[in-house]
This record gives sequence, structure tokens and C-alpha cells, in this order.
Amino acid sequence: MIYIDRNSSQPLYEQIYSHFSEEILTGTLAAGSRLPATRKLAEELSIGRNTVDRAYQQLTAEGYVQPRTGSGFIVNRIPIEKIPQCSKKILPAAVDDMSPSVRYDFAYGAMDNSVFPYNHWRKSLNNALGMLEMSDSIHYPQRTGELALRQEIVRYLYHSRGVSCKPEQVVITCGQQHSMEIIANMFEDTGKTFSMEDPGYDGIRTIFSNHNFHMNYIPVEKDGISIECATEFNTDLLYITPSHQFPTGAVMSIGKRKELLHWAEKSNTYLIEDDYDSELRYYTNPIPSLQSLDKNSRTIYTGTFSKSLSPFMRLAYIIFPQSLLPRYYKYYSRYNSQVSTFHQLALADFMASGCYERHLNRLRTFYKKKHTALLTAISTVFGNSIEISGEGAGLHLLLNVKGTLSQDELIDKAGSIGIKVYSTKDLYAVASRCPVSQLLIGFPTIPDEAFEKIMYELKNVWDMS
Amino acid sequence: MIYIDRNSSQPLYEQIYSHFSEEILTGTLAAGSRLPATRKLAEELSIGRNTVDRAYQQLTAEGYVQPRTGSGFIVNRIPIEKIPQCSKKILPAAVDDMSPSVRYDFAYGAMDNSVFPYNHWRKSLNNALGMLEMSDSIHYPQRTGELALRQEIVRYLYHSRGVSCKPEQVVITCGQQHSMEIIANMFEDTGKTFSMEDPGYDGIRTIFSNHNFHMNYIPVEKDGISIECATEFNTDLLYITPSHQFPTGAVMSIGKRKELLHWAEKSNTYLIEDDYDSELRYYTNPIPSLQSLDKNSRTIYTGTFSKSLSPFMRLAYIIFPQSLLPRYYKYYSRYNSQVSTFHQLALADFMASGCYERHLNRLRTFYKKKHTALLTAISTVFGNSIEISGEGAGLHLLLNVKGTLSQDELIDKAGSIGIKVYSTKDLYAVASRCPVSQLLIGFPTIPDEAFEKIMYELKNVWDMS
Repeated sequence: MIYIDRNSSQPLYEQIYSHFSEEILTGTLAAGSRLPATRKLAEELSIGRNTVDRAYQQLTAEGYVQPRTGSGFIVNRIPIEKIPQCSKKILPAAVDDMSPSVRYDFAYGAMDNSVFPYNHWRKSLNNALGMLEMSDSIHYPQRTGELALRQEIVRYLYHSRGVSCKPEQVVITCGQQHSMEIIANMFEDTGKTFSMEDPGYDGIRTIFSNHNFHMNYIPVEKDGISIECATEFNTDLLYITPSHQFPTGAVMSIGKRKELLHWAEKSNTYLIEDDYDSELRYYTNPIPSLQSLDKNSRTIYTGTFSKSLSPFMRLAYIIFPQSLLPRYYKYYSRYNSQVSTFHQLALADFMASGCYERHLNRLRTFYKKKHTALLTAISTVFGNSIEISGEGAGLHLLLNVKGTLSQDELIDKAGSIGIKVYSTKDLYAVASRCPVSQLLIGFPTIPDEAFEKIMYELKNVWDMS
Repeated sequence: MIYIDRNSSQPLYEQIYSHFSEEILTGTLAAGSRLPATRKLAEELSIGRNTVDRAYQQLTAEGYVQPRTGSGFIVNRIPIEKIPQCSKKILPAAVDDMSPSVRYDFAYGAMDNSVFPYNHWRKSLNNALGMLEMSDSIHYPQRTGELALRQEIVRYLYHSRGVSCKPEQVVITCGQQHSMEIIANMFEDTGKTFSMEDPGYDGIRTIFSNHNFHMNYIPVEKDGISIECATEFNTDLLYITPSHQFPTGAVMSIGKRKELLHWAEKSNTYLIEDDYDSELRYYTNPIPSLQSLDKNSRTIYTGTFSKSLSPFMRLAYIIFPQSLLPRYYKYYSRYNSQVSTFHQLALADFMASGCYERHLNRLRTFYKKKHTALLTAISTVFGNSIEISGEGAGLHLLLNVKGTLSQDELIDKAGSIGIKVYSTKDLYAVASRCPVSQLLIGFPTIPDEAFEKIMYELKNVWDMS
């Protein structure tokens, strides 16, 4: 007998549905047996026939029963099992919160929020939404990205980085790692050999190693990657950060650039130029891109808006040489873009309006001041006992803390007084290359006026008085 | 001799820089030779020493020259080449525009723009931007997605789809294809066997086949995938759309669901449940998810906001069983999320405010009306000479046009009068399974009142009077 609760918030037809589905799943109603006739059940329960009908239709749609002409609804054959009661209670989620004792976090990758151009960005978002609102229908985004954004990127790169390309060579991505995944996928059917700088960005190393590439790690010298070592291997791809090596800050000299391009042409290697923070050079002009020197289409140029605008955007791009476009389309012909149309249109609007360039100028001024304050603080407090590499650009420094303390000891001692500095171990694929007392510090989120005080605290806790 | 153009828009230091870099690259200034002394050059050109300094610093930074104490700036050794003039003119981009003769496009994947909740969405965007603006610093997004959004998804899936999970099982992605790439990557080290429905979504097939999985294609029956065929293979993964098979529209019966879950447990297979448009069922309640029946954690549940909200969002999600989380973290420990924080926060706000559920109700009503109008038009005009499958849910139908015309002929003839209908050939991995005169039509962007007129035109051009 069905029990119907008229005071329940569960609709009547659902109660009927639940009753029968449970009876069928537990075997109480056996395969081949018939559900009560609609009219009869409706009368029994004093409810409308429509209500019963609706419940039966749901049971039919889900395959519990099937209608048979003239004989109502017959129960289907279904594997029976005792269903254990399982708790559906949702536990509170683990929150990745920061230890409360951290007072200053020299995290690399975090950015100061006060320079983000919220008002202009809000305007561009509204413009983009307005554009979408006016269109007749909504589509999946174009595979390589919105044309308006690709055009803006072409224009921007041409005059700021000397990069020469057409919009069809541009692919918009969700960040540098996404760019690298696309490239890794495209080279699936080659010898799968990948060379990269060491030290270098471990987030890139992971991707190619996850894709089972054979990996070569090339040491970095003061003027960029060792050409001697790089050209020793046959490799499909060589990944470099020529304008601001990550993390050492080295700028690849023009001589090395020319040699590398020459070798790439001769050995049929593609160079992946990661130009991740070229906008942030404080004392000289930006270094021209490798792509701008390349006359033989050996350079895959990649850039991002994570440093120049914000990592929360998740917007980056690849410029393929024309010769690689067929390979791209071969792999990606049936893929949709993974980047929100809306976000792309907003960025295109932001760039077209001139806001992006004005923002870059502001950003450079802002971080130059911070960068100078940090260098001054370090040199005032530590003198020659800290060696700095990578000054002049970007959002981080490498420190070599001369003394007897190891990376771990330096980090632990700093942590004990609430100052978070970072190891460079993960950045070295060849562990023995990692200097004993090297630290990575990102400075965007630390207030300028705190640097000197922090350095005195560190000097004290590191016992370097 | 340097020629300086004081009327040029190019700054003076850049002119000096360009002059020397070109002389060095072309070999006019040989390796080892000295640049003119700063003071002397400044006097010669009647410009400030700072201007010359700036040019020399740029040349130094880029490795053209190096300063030598007491003897000024010495030109470095650089491979010389004749640089061919290359045209930097940017050609107009190819625009993927639609042929002007298309009057009605039954594209699947396009959506009607008038139901998108622009005003509420704008509000949520502004709230999200406000939230970001108030935070101290900007970070890379959390790897698996913003907690606020994961919590909203958990809540929504629990009450609408019976899916039981915790926020830590949720991974936010940029669309269903991105979800599948993540899963394909995670199963790199297994036997790499993948089974899927046939017909099925070719965008998914491509991904696993691109990842070099061994592929099995399982035929689809009226009540879902053939269990007999599916359970014949040992497979790591079986991909299914149980609540609304794409493209046939079949609903997997409760009997088959239980059998499949039983087999998955026994054979150590993971089931990928793609619940891509479960929100759009018009005449019965949504079909409960497979995940909600699974007591043994064999189901990877995936969903998307592309149908329920908009494909321009590029927001989707995976719910992993707890047992697969270690595998996820093993592969992805060094990856950032590819989904914009900002977009995630906006969607979380939109869901938390109740706007999402209200929108879904509106959407269902809107498309139910359209769906009904289309079914009525087809049956009025064609009677029994078109067989429809997949009615009752979703945004597309499969038509079987009885007669002598093939898919290509049907499509060409319709195209000749400006009506675009679509082939199903790409959806069948086993080509021989594809019915000769089957068509796929998506209906979201066609006005309701046009359906009958269109059907008469089609009947006429297909010569079915």
C-alpha cells in the first residue's frame, strides 16, 4: 500500500515515483508484474489521474517499467541489490588558508592588487557583455580565439616586441602552461625530445615530462643558455626565456641569439620563446624578442597577461610560425577553444582603447619603485654578504646569501619570525646545480617601506651581524 | 657617421641604438672595435650625454657590446648575416563568415541569445570584481577551482541530480573537452583502453584517440549503450551519456545502469558519466544521475554550463570519486588552474543568489515551447515520413528522412534553398552504422513561428509531396 503524505514538501507524483522505484529496486515488485492501473490508484489515493500519470511516465523514462498496450505498465528486469544507506551529508571543505604567523610572504606569482586597473577593466567587461548581448545567437568560441583579440595582440607585439605575425598565427590560451600543453600535443608524433634551461620554470618541465618527452637540461650562463650544451643534442624543441631568464634574470646576448637561430635552422629544431614578463624592464628598454630576429620561422613565441595584467585572467597566447599551422590544425581540428569569448572580447576592448598601454606604464613605474626600494634595502643592510642576480627586470630576485646556512636553514629561520622566502630547488632539474644558499623572492605584495625593516630582521635571525 | 633626425617620432636614444645595432649585425662595426666615447658622441651630435648613455646601456643589455673599464664599450663577437628585407605588413585576417545565402541554420551548439540572463550576470560579474578588488593581493587561481564555486556546484548537484560529493572532489575546467583531457592525462600509465558510445560526441573521441588510447566503440540501443558489447572488453574507461545519449537521445534504463555499475566494480573500470544537458528535460523530471546510484565509487561525473548557461562561458566540472584524487594530484601537482578566478567567482555568486535555478526554469520553459513547436511542425508537414529520435529533452533532434535521398543529398538540397541541416557521419566511429538518411538538427536559434514554413520548404525541395 502506498502512503501519501499531503503535508510533505515532496510533490505527490514524486512520492508515488519514489515508492515504486524503491519497490522495484529492492525486488518487492518483481520483474513482469504490473503497476496498479492509473485510474484505480488515483481513486484509492483520492488524487488526480494526471498525478499518477506523471509518476508512471517518469518511471518509464528511467526504464523501471514499460507501457504495454492494453495491460498498463509492466516492471522491467533489473539486477536486485540491497542498497546500503549511505550518508549524503556534505562535510565542510578543507580550506587552504595561510598559517597566521606569516607576516611577509615573498611569494613569486602573487601581485599587488592596488595597480590592477579595476575601473577600466570593469568598463571593458561591460562593453564586451554589451557586444554579446546585441548578437543574435550565442556560439562556441572560435577555436584559435576571437579575431578582435588576435588582431590587438598582433598590433601590440609588433610595436612593443618587434614580433611580426598575422592574426591567423595567433592562438589564445588559458595561460603559459596551457600554451605548453598545446605545443607538447602537437609534437606527439616526433622524436619527442625536449630541451630546456636549467634552472627553469618547473611548471613547464612537468608538462613535457608528463607527456613523456625525452628531456635535456641545459645550463644557464650569465648571458643566457649555454649554446655549446644546447647544440650538443638533437632535439625537437628548445624552451628558452631569452629576454629575462627565469629564474636567473640573465638576458641572452645578441650573439647567442644569432647562433641559436642559425643552429635551429640547420638542425630542424623549433625554439619556444617564453616572453613571460618582457613588459617589466626597469632601467633599459625591453629586450627585442628572439622572434623578431628569426628569418627562418623557427620560433614559437609565447606570451601571457599573467604578469602584465593579472594571473586571475588566465589569458595567454602562442604565435606559431606559418609552417607549424598545419600541424596545429591536424591535432586540434575538432577542438573548441577553452577560453571564454566574453573575457577575450573584454581584453580586446581594453587593448583597443589604449588602456593596456597606459596600464603597462603605470605598472612599470609602480614596480620599478618597489624593485629599487628592495635593492637599496638589501644592499644597505647586507652589503656584499648577499649577492643578487636578476636585477633590472621582473617581479623576483635570486639571492645568494653568503655564509654557512643552507636554503632550508635560511627558509626555516626566516619562517620562525613570520617571513616567508622560497627555495630554488624545484627549479633545478639537475639537483647538483642548485647553489646551497640560493633563495627566490618575489616582491610584488610587500609594502616598499617594510623592506629595510625586514632585511634587518633577516640579518638578525640568520646571525649575520 | 650617425645621422640623427630631430623631427622623427623615434626618440634620439633609439636612433642611436638602431644605428649601432645595425652596424654590428651587418659587420660594419667589427667584433672587438670600440663605440665612440659617450662624451665625444654627445658633443658631435649636440645631444645630452644621458641620451647616448641610455642607447649604450640598451646595447649592453642586449649583448651587442660590453663595457670595459677604462676603454668604453667594445663590440661583441656575433655571427654576421645578410638580413633580407622582410615585409612586416600585416595582411587582413581571414574572417570565418557565414555564407550570406543561409537563412536558417540548424546548428547544434548555438544558443538563442534572448534567454541569457544578461542583467543578473552583469550583477554577478560586478560582485565578483568587487570581491577581487577588496583583496590585498592577486594570486594564481587555486588548482582545482575556487572553493566558493565548488561548494555551489556540490549543493546544486546534490539536490538536482542526486550527486553526492564533497568540494574537494570537484575540479573546475574550461569545458567538457578540457575535462576529458584531464581524465585522459590521468590514465596515461594504465592499459590506455577507452570505450565509448557509437554514435557519440566526436569531440570526445578525438581527445582519447589523440592521446593514443586503444578505442572500443559500443553500439547504442533504444535504452542506452549495449551492455553485452560494453562488457565484452577490458577497458580502463567507459564514456557514456546515460541521461540523454548524444546524439540519439536514448535514456539508459535503470536495469542497464545497475548492470553497468556492477560490471564496473567487478572489472575495475571507471565510468565517465557525461551529464551535458540534464537540465533540459521537458516532459518528465530529469533522469537521476548514474553517480547517484553508484555505491562503489566507479563513476567520474562530468557536467558543463555550456548548455544550461552559455558556451561562451567555458565553464565545466569533474566530480572525481575519492579514490581517484591521488591519481589527479599525482599528475597535476605542479599545474595552475586554467580557469579565470574572476569568472568562477561570478558564477558562484550567480548560483548562490538563486539566479541560476530561476534561469534554468526559464530556459526549460523557453526551449520546451520551441521543442514542441518543432515537433508539431515536423509531424504536421511530414506525418510518418520523418522518424524522430531524441525528443523530450535537449537542444537537438535526430531525423530519419524516409525516402531515397542520402544524407549528402538531403543536406545539399536543403542548402540550395538556404536551410542548413547537418550530417551525423562524424558522430559514428564505425561508418557502416550511420543510417543513410539521418540528419542532426539543433533548434535553439530558429524562431518558433518559422518551423512550419521551413518544413514545407524542405518537403518541397526533398520532393516528398
